[in-house]
Amino acid sequence: MAKIDFQEDKLHEECGVFGIFGSPDAATLTTLGLHALQHRGQEGAGIVTFDGESFHGTRRPGLVSDFFTRENVIKKLMGSNAIGHVRYSTTGDSIVKNIQPFYADLSSGGFACAHNGNLTNASMLRQNLVNDGAIFQSTSDTETILQLVARSKREYITDKLIDALFQIQGAYALVILTNKKLIGVRDPYGIRPLVLGDLKGAPVLASETCALDIIGAKYVRDVENGEIIVITDNKIESIKPFPNVNERPCIFERIYFSRPDSIIDGRSVYSYRKNLGSELAKEYKIDADVVVPIPDSGVPAALGFSQTSSIPFELGLIRNHYVGRTFIEPTQSIRQFGVKLKHSVNVSYIKNKKVILIDDSIVRGTTAKKIVKMVYDAGAKEVHLGVSCPPITHPDFYGIDTPNYDELIASNKNINEMSSIIGTKSLFFLSLDGTYRAMGCEERDNSSPQFTDHCFTGEYPTPLIDMEQGNVSKQYSLLTEKS
Amino acid sequence: MAKIDFQEDKLHEECGVFGIFGSPDAATLTTLGLHALQHRGQEGAGIVTFDGESFHGTRRPGLVSDFFTRENVIKKLMGSNAIGHVRYSTTGDSIVKNIQPFYADLSSGGFACAHNGNLTNASMLRQNLVNDGAIFQSTSDTETILQLVARSKREYITDKLIDALFQIQGAYALVILTNKKLIGVRDPYGIRPLVLGDLKGAPVLASETCALDIIGAKYVRDVENGEIIVITDNKIESIKPFPNVNERPCIFERIYFSRPDSIIDGRSVYSYRKNLGSELAKEYKIDADVVVPIPDSGVPAALGFSQTSSIPFELGLIRNHYVGRTFIEPTQSIRQFGVKLKHSVNVSYIKNKKVILIDDSIVRGTTAKKIVKMVYDAGAKEVHLGVSCPPITHPDFYGIDTPNYDELIASNKNINEMSSIIGTKSLFFLSLDGTYRAMGCEERDNSSPQFTDHCFTGEYPTPLIDMEQGNVSKQYSLLTEKS
Amino acid sequence: MAKIDFQEDKLHEECGVFGIFGSPDAATLTTLGLHALQHRGQEGAGIVTFDGESFHGTRRPGLVSDFFTRENVIKKLMGSNAIGHVRYSTTGDSIVKNIQPFYADLSSGGFACAHNGNLTNASMLRQNLVNDGAIFQSTSDTETILQLVARSKREYITDKLIDALFQIQGAYALVILTNKKLIGVRDPYGIRPLVLGDLKGAPVLASETCALDIIGAKYVRDVENGEIIVITDNKIESIKPFPNVNERPCIFERIYFSRPDSIIDGRSVYSYRKNLGSELAKEYKIDADVVVPIPDSGVPAALGFSQTSSIPFELGLIRNHYVGRTFIEPTQSIRQFGVKLKHSVNVSYIKNKKVILIDDSIVRGTTAKKIVKMVYDAGAKEVHLGVSCPPITHPDFYGIDTPNYDELIASNKNINEMSSIIGTKSLFFLSLDGTYRAMGCEERDNSSPQFTDHCFTGEYPTPLIDMEQGNVSKQYSLLTEKS
Amino acid sequence: MAKIDFQEDKLHEECGVFGIFGSPDAATLTTLGLHALQHRGQEGAGIVTFDGESFHGTRRPGLVSDFFTRENVIKKLMGSNAIGHVRYSTTGDSIVKNIQPFYADLSSGGFACAHNGNLTNASMLRQNLVNDGAIFQSTSDTETILQLVARSKREYITDKLIDALFQIQGAYALVILTNKKLIGVRDPYGIRPLVLGDLKGAPVLASETCALDIIGAKYVRDVENGEIIVITDNKIESIKPFPNVNERPCIFERIYFSRPDSIIDGRSVYSYRKNLGSELAKEYKIDADVVVPIPDSGVPAALGFSQTSSIPFELGLIRNHYVGRTFIEPTQSIRQFGVKLKHSVNVSYIKNKKVILIDDSIVRGTTAKKIVKMVYDAGAKEVHLGVSCPPITHPDFYGIDTPNYDELIASNKNINEMSSIIGTKSLFFLSLDGTYRAMGCEERDNSSPQFTDHCFTGEYPTPLIDMEQGNVSKQYSLLTEKS
Repeated sequence: MAKIDFQEDKLHEECGVFGIFGSPDAATLTTLGLHALQHRGQEGAGIVTFDGESFHGTRRPGLVSDFFTRENVIKKLMGSNAIGHVRYSTTGDSIVKNIQPFYADLSSGGFACAHNGNLTNASMLRQNLVNDGAIFQSTSDTETILQLVARSKREYITDKLIDALFQIQGAYALVILTNKKLIGVRDPYGIRPLVLGDLKGAPVLASETCALDIIGAKYVRDVENGEIIVITDNKIESIKPFPNVNERPCIFERIYFSRPDSIIDGRSVYSYRKNLGSELAKEYKIDADVVVPIPDSGVPAALGFSQTSSIPFELGLIRNHYVGRTFIEPTQSIRQFGVKLKHSVNVSYIKNKKVILIDDSIVRGTTAKKIVKMVYDAGAKEVHLGVSCPPITHPDFYGIDTPNYDELIASNKNINEMSSIIGTKSLFFLSLDGTYRAMGCEERDNSSPQFTDHCFTGEYPTPLIDMEQGNVSKQYSLLTEKS
Repeated sequence: MAKIDFQEDKLHEECGVFGIFGSPDAATLTTLGLHALQHRGQEGAGIVTFDGESFHGTRRPGLVSDFFTRENVIKKLMGSNAIGHVRYSTTGDSIVKNIQPFYADLSSGGFACAHNGNLTNASMLRQNLVNDGAIFQSTSDTETILQLVARSKREYITDKLIDALFQIQGAYALVILTNKKLIGVRDPYGIRPLVLGDLKGAPVLASETCALDIIGAKYVRDVENGEIIVITDNKIESIKPFPNVNERPCIFERIYFSRPDSIIDGRSVYSYRKNLGSELAKEYKIDADVVVPIPDSGVPAALGFSQTSSIPFELGLIRNHYVGRTFIEPTQSIRQFGVKLKHSVNVSYIKNKKVILIDDSIVRGTTAKKIVKMVYDAGAKEVHLGVSCPPITHPDFYGIDTPNYDELIASNKNINEMSSIIGTKSLFFLSLDGTYRAMGCEERDNSSPQFTDHCFTGEYPTPLIDMEQGNVSKQYSLLTEKS
Repeated sequence: MAKIDFQEDKLHEECGVFGIFGSPDAATLTTLGLHALQHRGQEGAGIVTFDGESFHGTRRPGLVSDFFTRENVIKKLMGSNAIGHVRYSTTGDSIVKNIQPFYADLSSGGFACAHNGNLTNASMLRQNLVNDGAIFQSTSDTETILQLVARSKREYITDKLIDALFQIQGAYALVILTNKKLIGVRDPYGIRPLVLGDLKGAPVLASETCALDIIGAKYVRDVENGEIIVITDNKIESIKPFPNVNERPCIFERIYFSRPDSIIDGRSVYSYRKNLGSELAKEYKIDADVVVPIPDSGVPAALGFSQTSSIPFELGLIRNHYVGRTFIEPTQSIRQFGVKLKHSVNVSYIKNKKVILIDDSIVRGTTAKKIVKMVYDAGAKEVHLGVSCPPITHPDFYGIDTPNYDELIASNKNINEMSSIIGTKSLFFLSLDGTYRAMGCEERDNSSPQFTDHCFTGEYPTPLIDMEQGNVSKQYSLLTEKS
Repeated sequence: MAKIDFQEDKLHEECGVFGIFGSPDAATLTTLGLHALQHRGQEGAGIVTFDGESFHGTRRPGLVSDFFTRENVIKKLMGSNAIGHVRYSTTGDSIVKNIQPFYADLSSGGFACAHNGNLTNASMLRQNLVNDGAIFQSTSDTETILQLVARSKREYITDKLIDALFQIQGAYALVILTNKKLIGVRDPYGIRPLVLGDLKGAPVLASETCALDIIGAKYVRDVENGEIIVITDNKIESIKPFPNVNERPCIFERIYFSRPDSIIDGRSVYSYRKNLGSELAKEYKIDADVVVPIPDSGVPAALGFSQTSSIPFELGLIRNHYVGRTFIEPTQSIRQFGVKLKHSVNVSYIKNKKVILIDDSIVRGTTAKKIVKMVYDAGAKEVHLGVSCPPITHPDFYGIDTPNYDELIASNKNINEMSSIIGTKSLFFLSLDGTYRAMGCEERDNSSPQFTDHCFTGEYPTPLIDMEQGNVSKQYSLLTEKS
């Protein structure tokens, strides 16, 4: 029997990280923090704790609330220091050994590490390490960092870590737990996010502020680009080993990934998204009866568009939150159902209307095409589709799961062609400068862009070593062993 | 370790039903139909099919997409006729033997039955049946129907069924599968919904039209109150055995239960909910900066309120869709987290604002209290709470899981007291007539109300026999056997 | 891929029962008792307890030690009265709803029942009951007993039970638990066994004495044929409602089913089996070098044969106790392995030897054929096969899983033909009178046989009503629902 | 609730290994081979295959027949070369990451390894490797071998392996799979066994001949002590890198571990065990009525004892093969059950008899004590206990799980004291020379013993480096991560 796959046509983040130091409820609080970061990855989750003597850890496929809410799980994760990780759900079977945090017994003691991001020279480094006798147990680039740390001849763990960081390239936000320290690291450009918080004196590290809010911790500051934060029992130390460069965070955190209530740069992610909608409304004047978001992610931009354009906002599409990934497909004698499992039309607000659909991004265009058809089938007079960011023309190599150039619709088609494929009366994208304005910039600084925005521009912040050498494979010829 | 329970303070429906007759993909289509009805019950799901010779069935705890999307499950559910059921998730362990459809081998052949609703004299009937030698295998009132049908001395199954229906009282929408027929039944008042559809000639029965939409079936008509629809290979027959009374459907289907895109009486449920918000805005003029829905169910009414009042609508509260039911509670030294697992504040739209929160109903007031506190903690200047239906003062006995009088806040407190408990600057409820206006009535017809609305009025449409005799227990002293 | 099935060519018992009344550890002791009876059935096990107020129960597929040794399982089985059941492993999927004890809420209160045996008129009774409105939930003949008890119009439970017993025919050893009583019943001929024991004042019922031994209980006496033993708080009452007939227990309990250390009629089962071997040695003089049992069940008879014949006993065949039921079969290019998964040859004691293999019975002859070939392949000069009971020519209908006439080798072939099929130099069976002598009788009393021995003689003790009416099907056209 | 643990008082082997090269059914045949070796370890099993391009592997807790008989498991283990491993069941939770075969991606390609035995300098080597940057993923000494191979600077895999072998000490039988070769290795003394077989041209390696028999493979020869056998597509090469020493296999393979039908040195293990019983009977003349083995392992020696002494052999003790490891213990008000779950008395052959019990070894004496009491409780007049090997006075460090000196009864008590503790009328052990005679030697060659027999003599064949340095811990402070 064929299966219908309902993976949405979106970019996908690969991870979220969390750490806490010196709190009696470390494992429970990490569970809550990871739960708040669940939107960053649903494949699996892991927690490692340290109780003053031993490290304890559990890694599991599935959602945080599926497993880490069990009493017997939390009981075994003893200790007041902990780090945790949620991992993005790739297609295909989950491989437990790739679920983080990773752990190694170094000569200096235990070392656990959780990583959000992606290295661009991991394959090259891995090959060198294997040639030198290293044995890898996972297919993850994160293990490369551990192997490099393990082989450093420096005495102190912080120096070992710096040794390793100077060899890796790409995007990384790390939280690391040793028997004395909780360490947070952001790559030189600060591509992936990491914030520092405080829970009644216990320092906290997290990918987003929403993970601080859920445990009632206060936001202290962002970990800076290129900064190593070393937390011990009596102090928080900042180390900046890299040459100083301007921060250049990934713009998709604001456009799509971060949770709407997370605060970045003093403002909520939701407000950036409304701004994107407002800017879009300023750039395009469409004669329409109703603004309808493609739920859930298109809602804030649609609200912004509606408020700026004064065209009424309606929930003309309904999203079913119970949906799984696949369903058995009925035989061909019966029509394809496709997108209806996830979205359905609220006919009253669509029929005989000129509709502007608003989405936050278009990747392959597959979901948009189905939805546009569904809206026309429901009786819409016209369907326009506004996208609250520029066309995505280039893939990512820093931890966002993007399709190849071949599959990126905007990489191969112009806007008219895309509109024709998707079936819209008109298709319009926010300009790059409009995007920067929505973020609060006057314009993009082309000599030193304020954001990592290569998906729109092709300007990658770091060399893409593995890709240029043809080492882009994410899977080694290891055992096909499954959990 | 203590557990935090995050069951929301809402009413809960007990079931959704679906049936299809004469389609080669009967089990797959039933899976899709039940998936569309998943909001009506998440405890468990079951499907029974008939392949011309044998009945096949599977019943399982969990979501439809957890289990019924597996190829090996669908393969065993052979046949072109099928019925299915989704069941509401009660607290406590799921009892597999209560998951429907129920099945019995009658002298006339196999008989499978799925039921949405609740009988008000099931305990009394059960006692009589047990005294007469019947053995019950479940604790469900639905089994009473089967036992009555089994004992009827009439020859034909339709007559046996009518025999049984004349003995039961309360609310019921039934779908029944025999070796020759698919049968749909609605109780004399039509308290619970049931619609008839058509998929390329194959008749379909479902609780809501959204289950027709997902499979591309056309809506034909509602099954009428007191009607029995008998579907066989060559015709659809309508039987009306009961004295004629006016239809009086449960008003909560429109206020809360049905999916927003389902169509009732020619209009979408979403539009009724927007009307409720509009009516509320007409009844109360509040000076405020922003209208914020309590997501997800408060969104349509908040939109209606905003459009009518011209106070801007903002998603000032964010809902986490990954939430499970319980989490391990951190120790007392750390503050309670409560509602934050499910909802978080979008501070930018709350801080220093006069906020009107809109919810669709208040049951115990517990969730509202936590959210109001959270909104004040986020810096709101004033928090008003508007509820888009009247105060719920009376429990339900027709298939809605309501708390006792003791726990219903509106049953025990006046509005000022409730406002003080919940912590709002003001608390305001839509009037009963406003509610009826939102439904398209001029006013409530007090001599013959258009809706079953006892939760607001105490006017129960049928006698409450078991309750009056003290037989309200839903659990018999059976085996504590679990799945 | 094909599967190799390693079900042995033996008769299979359908059940073992256990009950205890008035012991604080009732569930734990029942677990131990069922564990001792595990050889009587490995498909599933169940326990029902009564704690003075409520009944508790759990039924599960698998071995007793797989599930009932878990603390959380035992904790829920509260109360000082308990009954339990182990069920024989049929091929095909296990059906949880057929695992006993069965339970019903009767008008007189809870009624739990576990049954070893098989009724010969269950299908006829079931049809009558269904015609009268009874709903069956299982495919088991045992449920018929419950339905009959439920429908009795007598006032007291003991009378209801007698009402039911007068309607059923066949073999049954029952243990029954009500809210006041533990009841044991044996059918009028005492075909299936049941013993009464005592654990420090707490009465115990069990299929065999080995279940008394494991808990340190004393053997009191056998429940007599046709006897009902009613145990209450202050007395043990014996009721004999049936006309008096001679006891006629199933001879296979001694030949094959019962555990070797169980005591029947004052002597161990092991000793009866040794006697069978001795009698066989007296009847046949074979010139051979070594007596080799087919393990495990052939060992006692082989010892008896060896001691009487003075031919040395050796474990020339080794049995692997880790064997599962099926293995993936290698492709045809490689030879069949068959019996080697369960048995292997101890070559040193076989090669160049004249070997007498001893087995306790031959059903289809399939296992014997493979073993004989294996022994010849290992270099045996001659292979003789002695069987310590007569040829099995007739199937059983009293709770032993036997193949049809078609498959019973002795029903279709004479001894020479069988020897040729199995591949032995000679094949010899113990005579019927020899079998009776081994049991301690002078000879078989043909006018009133001391044992139920129809498998050898075709003399069934009761009418075979269902079979004669063509109602032998054990499976009704119920749901194919699986656990 | 307390748990009764029924782990028997025996020595326990840690592993069995199997490999096959160039057979289309490699995974199925490895499953069968491991099944035949299941007595060597029941904690878990694993298989790694190579299909010409990729390695595939699965490792699971539990029995071979629990998991590797599933079609979907075998289907994924593609390829015609395979190795497998069964692992001994330790108390405590199974740790999946310690289940073998282990796998590493070396610079030379994939390398899978399965190990039976134990290294005596693994901790020291591990510490050195960690100091040099190696990351270990398991707590097993076997991983040390992989890390050493990975770090060898030699070019060819065989040379890398020899590099590693020269650094390790202790007992090992290895099977190794690379993308070109199947390799078998035995340590310089040949402490653990390994045999070479042939299945229609496909070479096979296995711990015992019983694993050849089950797949119909022919025994070719033993892998010699200190030999490396390298199997490639076109030849089988033998390498002997170590200085020549006499073979000195572990004597417990014959006394207890190997399966009775396995052939060692041309004779079945069963025959060695009978010889041990015969020798025991020659050394001790006891006036007794019956010889009773403690089943199952005491049976062959008891047969030998009976035949030599002419005292009749009877199965006076019955073993329950369904036993699990633990049961809930009844409360103290009821007597302890202990050994009865696994063994029960066949009273008829015990009561009023002078009984000689025969067991193959005594470790702590705990099981023996319970059985002796049980036999006296059953009415024995006298109970003598004969042990068919010398007293075990020293622990093993070569892969047999032995208790410490403290717990070894013979290490702390003389024979009279032991007899008194165990409760026997007399206790007698086979002499060391008698043991050697049973093996076919005239006597023990004290200058160069024919067997590894330190458990009786304290003469360890290799230095015990880790133990002497205090590195005997088998568990590192790694993650407590469980499967």
